[in-house]
Amino acid sequence: MTDLNVYQDDSVTLPKADHVQLIEDLFHQFLLAQKATLSPQIVDIATKEDTAQMRDATIPKADGMPMDQVISDMVKIMSHRVAMEHPKFFGLIPSPINENSYLGNIITTMFNVGTGSWYQGSGPSTVEDTLIKWMAEQAGLPSSAGGVFVSGGTMANLTAVVTARDAMLQFDQRPKAVIYASKETHVSVTKGLTVAGFLRSQIHRVESDSDFRIDPQSLRRQIAIDRKNGLVPFLIAGSCGFTNTGGIDDLNALADIAQEENLWLHVDGAYGASVVLSKDHKGCADGLGRANSLSWDPHKWLFQIYDCGLVLVRDKRHLVQSFNTEASYIRDAEEVNTDTVNFWNRGIEMSRSARGLKLWFTLQRVGLEKMGEMIDHGIYLAEFAEQTFRELENWEILSTASLGMFNFRYIPPMENLDPSLDVEKCCDDINAAISRLAVERNIAAPMTTRLRKALNLRMCTISPELSREQLFEVIQSIDLIAKEVEASFLKEHVFKL
Amino acid sequence: MTDLNVYQDDSVTLPKADHVQLIEDLFHQFLLAQKATLSPQIVDIATKEDTAQMRDATIPKADGMPMDQVISDMVKIMSHRVAMEHPKFFGLIPSPINENSYLGNIITTMFNVGTGSWYQGSGPSTVEDTLIKWMAEQAGLPSSAGGVFVSGGTMANLTAVVTARDAMLQFDQRPKAVIYASKETHVSVTKGLTVAGFLRSQIHRVESDSDFRIDPQSLRRQIAIDRKNGLVPFLIAGSCGFTNTGGIDDLNALADIAQEENLWLHVDGAYGASVVLSKDHKGCADGLGRANSLSWDPHKWLFQIYDCGLVLVRDKRHLVQSFNTEASYIRDAEEVNTDTVNFWNRGIEMSRSARGLKLWFTLQRVGLEKMGEMIDHGIYLAEFAEQTFRELENWEILSTASLGMFNFRYIPPMENLDPSLDVEKCCDDINAAISRLAVERNIAAPMTTRLRKALNLRMCTISPELSREQLFEVIQSIDLIAKEVEASFLKEHVFKL
Repeated sequence: MTDLNVYQDDSVTLPKADHVQLIEDLFHQFLLAQKATLSPQIVDIATKEDTAQMRDATIPKADGMPMDQVISDMVKIMSHRVAMEHPKFFGLIPSPINENSYLGNIITTMFNVGTGSWYQGSGPSTVEDTLIKWMAEQAGLPSSAGGVFVSGGTMANLTAVVTARDAMLQFDQRPKAVIYASKETHVSVTKGLTVAGFLRSQIHRVESDSDFRIDPQSLRRQIAIDRKNGLVPFLIAGSCGFTNTGGIDDLNALADIAQEENLWLHVDGAYGASVVLSKDHKGCADGLGRANSLSWDPHKWLFQIYDCGLVLVRDKRHLVQSFNTEASYIRDAEEVNTDTVNFWNRGIEMSRSARGLKLWFTLQRVGLEKMGEMIDHGIYLAEFAEQTFRELENWEILSTASLGMFNFRYIPPMENLDPSLDVEKCCDDINAAISRLAVERNIAAPMTTRLRKALNLRMCTISPELSREQLFEVIQSIDLIAKEVEASFLKEHVFKL
Repeated sequence: MTDLNVYQDDSVTLPKADHVQLIEDLFHQFLLAQKATLSPQIVDIATKEDTAQMRDATIPKADGMPMDQVISDMVKIMSHRVAMEHPKFFGLIPSPINENSYLGNIITTMFNVGTGSWYQGSGPSTVEDTLIKWMAEQAGLPSSAGGVFVSGGTMANLTAVVTARDAMLQFDQRPKAVIYASKETHVSVTKGLTVAGFLRSQIHRVESDSDFRIDPQSLRRQIAIDRKNGLVPFLIAGSCGFTNTGGIDDLNALADIAQEENLWLHVDGAYGASVVLSKDHKGCADGLGRANSLSWDPHKWLFQIYDCGLVLVRDKRHLVQSFNTEASYIRDAEEVNTDTVNFWNRGIEMSRSARGLKLWFTLQRVGLEKMGEMIDHGIYLAEFAEQTFRELENWEILSTASLGMFNFRYIPPMENLDPSLDVEKCCDDINAAISRLAVERNIAAPMTTRLRKALNLRMCTISPELSREQLFEVIQSIDLIAKEVEASFLKEHVFKL
């Protein structure tokens, strides 16, 4: 056996100065120049040829490749993406990133601390624990609350439903357990429930009101019926920030029912919970603090890079009850009264990087005052955009602006159309075409969704980097595209007079 | 409503050049200088005072703080950690990190691509998918295999057991289902099973042989008894790399039984699966390719930073069956035959960063040949250390070197001791003291574990940066500490003649 001459071989350990220079140049370009110069397209989806090329480039070779080639390959690969942080990406829930999050994550990368246990990472564990308690307080939860940073909403929802299952149900009750959700409840709640061992059929969908919120009367009725049928209601899944419309369930009404019926109230606030840090709109989330558990993703609306999700539980001992990974239960139950925290006893993961530190970095640097303004900014932008569309011709508003999001569609006059046409279908096609053209021309990326069967456009305008003037220009461009689509549609389909 | 002057306010968006300079300096220091200059201690656990200070510094303020202060606070916080990448940290499973992993993760950070769906990140999705297929092939799995990058072994084991549950059991069989594991099976397998809805009592512990491996005869007997009692055996959890000793279950024997009995064989190779990329020791993992599912953490033994875990499943359609998150099942079943991949249909998470790209970066840069040597290096080091201890006086080897790990303890002559003493207890105390002193003096961090009740020292020597000469010096220092502890012990406890 001979030793590797590791310190003399730059491919194995420390890179040469000029290699570091390459990375530093890239880093500098990203932080100081427009990120757009590296990824000019808002939406850049790999073609079949791109894909084949990347597959070839992925298979590891026997020998190492030069650093500059690997870097340039990686930049090319990563550029096939949706620039979720782009101020004009309005689809999904965008990720408008504060630069401080990049910096915080790079320092996190450099230290590479395992934050599963106190032993491995007592520094970041302390900060995450304190930050979690502070966030719980902002959400209105009591001082008994605790939680853990996870990768995102799906993991947060899974962690919460497992905790609820273990706190509320005897083992033999599980097959008869019932969960209440609405059509607007995020698909990840269903996913969490199936991972936790429930069937989809155990999720009962409650009727919604005209704002898509769970109807309290229907919920009460359904609970009564289910109990009568020998089922075991145990969990209500409310939402603070529907992905489709930005709407919020009546959280106080849900909390009242949960209290009366002795059910667990989980609120999926992955998107919307951040509103509690706003200056002018905290009230939107009224009732949030009455939840038994809460999902909240800083990588959605607290301007963090992936991954940065959070699950909070009203009484942190319930987390220990479900996720304690030590042999001895007593020691860990005690732990919650001391300064130390082993996060692997509060959540699913054992290996975990210090996801919360980039948020800490951002909050320290930016300050609460400005964070609040940045959140409010997005809410005002959506209201401004809704108003602007209302004043333009042929645009219909399907859901009014809520939490920086609204839904709308273009409906051209259809009196002279070929009567054999399905008007609803035409409308759908026209709006799909508007979205597609806006993306293709890199003007903006509003995406489509369906509300009450109608395909419509949806804008989530939460970027603090987007000015009202820029948004106004985007809306004018979208209106022009709509006219263009309309003209081309009429040319094809108008009833010949 | 007034717009935020975001581009003029450096705390909100783009940092000033001198702020970037601060980060770049830190980055440079990390990559080119010894990382030890920032974290001189191998083990640095926060004191009560440190903790109180950090808690104070965590609460967000109304106004932002200067960049240099936030950076220096963060460096201080992160320094309270175990330097898991330090060549002389031998505890847990160390994380000796290849520098290329840092660089790959910094580029990943800069692009911040969501890799849950093809739409969001077609570039990194393609590379991760191709890399996963290649890794499956290296492990001996067939071309039907697929998987997903996760945060670590616990998530990999959870993903695998949910997949096994859904593939093997009817819903009403779940309460009678039985899982087979041994005492050496990692605690995260238990955790995954309880999250997936099983009780701890459904995990039957099988007897082990003298090398701590599951005894095939006992397993066969237990399956027969369980079937006779109306239970439903469905899963065998084998291990490739026991955390305690580096041992490996007889994977071929387990695969034979799984095949005969129609059970699912999951192998937790979070630590040890990487041996299939070694040059000289691939054979250790014989039978690995017969598993139905496999956990494999590149952040353990492929020199990656957190987080970088992987779960592989023999037939990737089973993943889609359990984790598909779309409304329409057909579309996603079809997907597995095309170029596109939506990873949120292959695993639990929807939000997910491109964890696999830093591994891709490392493999491209280093090349397979050298990666193989780096893995072999750790295996040879442990063999060398075992041999060295064998040649020193009063040291006992409790488990021979396997996968870069071995167990040993110091047993001084005890003839003249006070006869009222518990010799075993004395031995435990002596070895605990040796470990404690080595850590306190920052000589090295061998940690303690128990094998057949005896407390012993355990070294995992997988750092490619550690030379044989350095290891020899460490062993000599540990031997000196042992003599010191022995002398102080004898002084107190020797029987007065």
